[in-house]
Amino acid sequence: MLKFAERTKGAKRSAIRELLKYTEQPEVISFAGGLPDPATFPTEFLAKVAQEEILHNALKSLQYTTTEGKRPLREALIRWLGEEGIKTTMDQIVITNGSQQGLDLLGRAFLDEGDAVFVSLPTYLGALQAFRAYQPTLVGIPLEEDGMDLSFLRRAIREAKRAGHEPKFIYVVPDFQNPTGITWSEEKRKELLEIAEKEDLLIVEDIPYRWLRYKGEHIPTIASLDEGGRVIVLLTFSKILAAGLRVGALVGPQEVVNMVVTLKQGADLCGPSLTQRLAVRFLTDYDMHAHIARLCQHYKVKLEAMLEALARHMPEEAGWTKPEGGLFVWVKLPEGVDTTKMLERALVHKVAYVPGQPFFADGSGQNTMRLSFALATLEQIEEGIRRLGAVIKEEVATLTLA
Amino acid sequence: MLKFAERTKGAKRSAIRELLKYTEQPEVISFAGGLPDPATFPTEFLAKVAQEEILHNALKSLQYTTTEGKRPLREALIRWLGEEGIKTTMDQIVITNGSQQGLDLLGRAFLDEGDAVFVSLPTYLGALQAFRAYQPTLVGIPLEEDGMDLSFLRRAIREAKRAGHEPKFIYVVPDFQNPTGITWSEEKRKELLEIAEKEDLLIVEDIPYRWLRYKGEHIPTIASLDEGGRVIVLLTFSKILAAGLRVGALVGPQEVVNMVVTLKQGADLCGPSLTQRLAVRFLTDYDMHAHIARLCQHYKVKLEAMLEALARHMPEEAGWTKPEGGLFVWVKLPEGVDTTKMLERALVHKVAYVPGQPFFADGSGQNTMRLSFALATLEQIEEGIRRLGAVIKEEVATLTLA
Repeated sequence: MLKFAERTKGAKRSAIRELLKYTEQPEVISFAGGLPDPATFPTEFLAKVAQEEILHNALKSLQYTTTEGKRPLREALIRWLGEEGIKTTMDQIVITNGSQQGLDLLGRAFLDEGDAVFVSLPTYLGALQAFRAYQPTLVGIPLEEDGMDLSFLRRAIREAKRAGHEPKFIYVVPDFQNPTGITWSEEKRKELLEIAEKEDLLIVEDIPYRWLRYKGEHIPTIASLDEGGRVIVLLTFSKILAAGLRVGALVGPQEVVNMVVTLKQGADLCGPSLTQRLAVRFLTDYDMHAHIARLCQHYKVKLEAMLEALARHMPEEAGWTKPEGGLFVWVKLPEGVDTTKMLERALVHKVAYVPGQPFFADGSGQNTMRLSFALATLEQIEEGIRRLGAVIKEEVATLTLA
Repeated sequence: MLKFAERTKGAKRSAIRELLKYTEQPEVISFAGGLPDPATFPTEFLAKVAQEEILHNALKSLQYTTTEGKRPLREALIRWLGEEGIKTTMDQIVITNGSQQGLDLLGRAFLDEGDAVFVSLPTYLGALQAFRAYQPTLVGIPLEEDGMDLSFLRRAIREAKRAGHEPKFIYVVPDFQNPTGITWSEEKRKELLEIAEKEDLLIVEDIPYRWLRYKGEHIPTIASLDEGGRVIVLLTFSKILAAGLRVGALVGPQEVVNMVVTLKQGADLCGPSLTQRLAVRFLTDYDMHAHIARLCQHYKVKLEAMLEALARHMPEEAGWTKPEGGLFVWVKLPEGVDTTKMLERALVHKVAYVPGQPFFADGSGQNTMRLSFALATLEQIEEGIRRLGAVIKEEVATLTLA
């Protein structure tokens, strides 16, 4: 008989990844996926450099690389992060398989059973999944329009300590968060740093969507405001280059990176050389800024279309975020609506979304949903939101009757 | 300040990976690396199909893929493993980042602190590193010329049970093992299965070198002899296609694969699409068998050169394995020689090897070393072994005097 380890007892697959199977029926307009639009991938450039790298640079593109990742990639990241005001060095970067591996390795490095990790309600589902493998106490902090409720966070840290749950880090996605699209204000970023300093905690700043800003002003990364070496940055090429390359990076204090590299050796030895070389070439031989500007224009139109369609088709009982970037809009329905149950009816009406509950560490959020506008056409966005509005109106009416 | 998790206390980097830095000085003839020869990588084919895949198949090569890995790759693996007499299905395969990730995910799936894992003395260092992250009891079993000492294994299983260490699996590299080059006999493979059946244990059969046989007859994989669904196979494209792609697979009972897929979701979501597509094309559009025949011819000459040079230059006190394939020869020196200490002197004489001790779960093996012939030229093999022979003769003389 199979005797799995204790830690696997709570292991479950992402509700979303499982759900996607059902949303892929023909004629369903799906806002469920979290994928970037493949129309944005620079295929001609990548095809050309992939061929060049393999043919003329096989030793660098096809042989094992170091666990830390390719030197030229880390060098290029130092320059790129420098533009963001993040000062870093070669020893403070490790290349990961997307930022997901960074999340896993941080859990492995820091989390003993019961240790406290602070996450917003809601937060990125993949982070919950990665951390849960190490059986921590996940403490949910309400998310406001401009970031976490920081008074709540202060109290939660004190309470965790009192209950014997050693606080380890605070996990945040401060730019156009997945799933809500919410961006933290500069004030709250600074205040979060003060809290981390006072409580001697680390901050994990996950910035996959940072470069996808369609309006408004850039707000400094938490890492660029940090003077105490308390911030660990996770970044990925998935949303700005190509998701299927699985190239990400973890950037942080040297001692943390050193430990993460040691753990990554056991986890998978090193990442693929070829995909890292493609990322190097993207950062050094391509007009990345022009590319990102095109990406932003591409998604901006879709986001605006979705916000307009929501205004047109949602019942007045519904509320939603108005993100300035990223890939997601977050919808909140009246208490009592269960978006997981409602999904079945939505699929009958040929429209799909992701129920919000799995994004909540405390199991709340039954009345919420995540909508992605990335893959849909403008026509699909209008028609899909019209269908969804009708489903929600029906649901709200049923609720009022009951 | 930084409070790492308890499990990191014993975490250390591969002694070998760290050592390699010192062996890369100019003029040093190095037998230390475990890398395949990049001259064997089919660069023209890979360059062509990489360009094609990115340009004409971007949705499949650049977008996220499933956690299980690409369907066509799993289909091609079913056919390939079929040639090896291993019957498997789509649900019994998960694509991993090299076999190293398979080792890590098996540790994660099965190992609670103190659980017993049985490994040969010596065994693949990366496996020790992967398993140790989960704090098991690693039980070392002497390795004989034809495989593990199975009487010893039977006793060790009983003793582990008696001591409260729940036996979980036996880890073996039955073909041209890293580090010794030893291949298990068919008799021992069958007997191992009987033991696993009787004791209700799993066998992890790691076969990275299986296809690198230069002489003698193929011996059936343990998995092909298995009728009880007790064998988990780990394979990789690192040694037969290109190491830097990091494409491997874990093949086993559906329930195990199901758990591994769940855990991989949290660990890194999915592998890179592009590298998986290259592996698909290698299995379907390339004459893989002719390629492997060329590989074998390439390495056979080097292995023979090394065995001849050893016979010529080693003192009579030294013994070594005579592998029929793989990338390694294993040398045993008289008790009292410490190959770790001796390495410094070897480097003075401009020759490098890997000391054997890190491959022993019990810390023994001070008088052993691993030699790889994969990267050296025939001239370097002759000259390097001559230098090494001189170093060893000196060392043995010192020993006799002391």
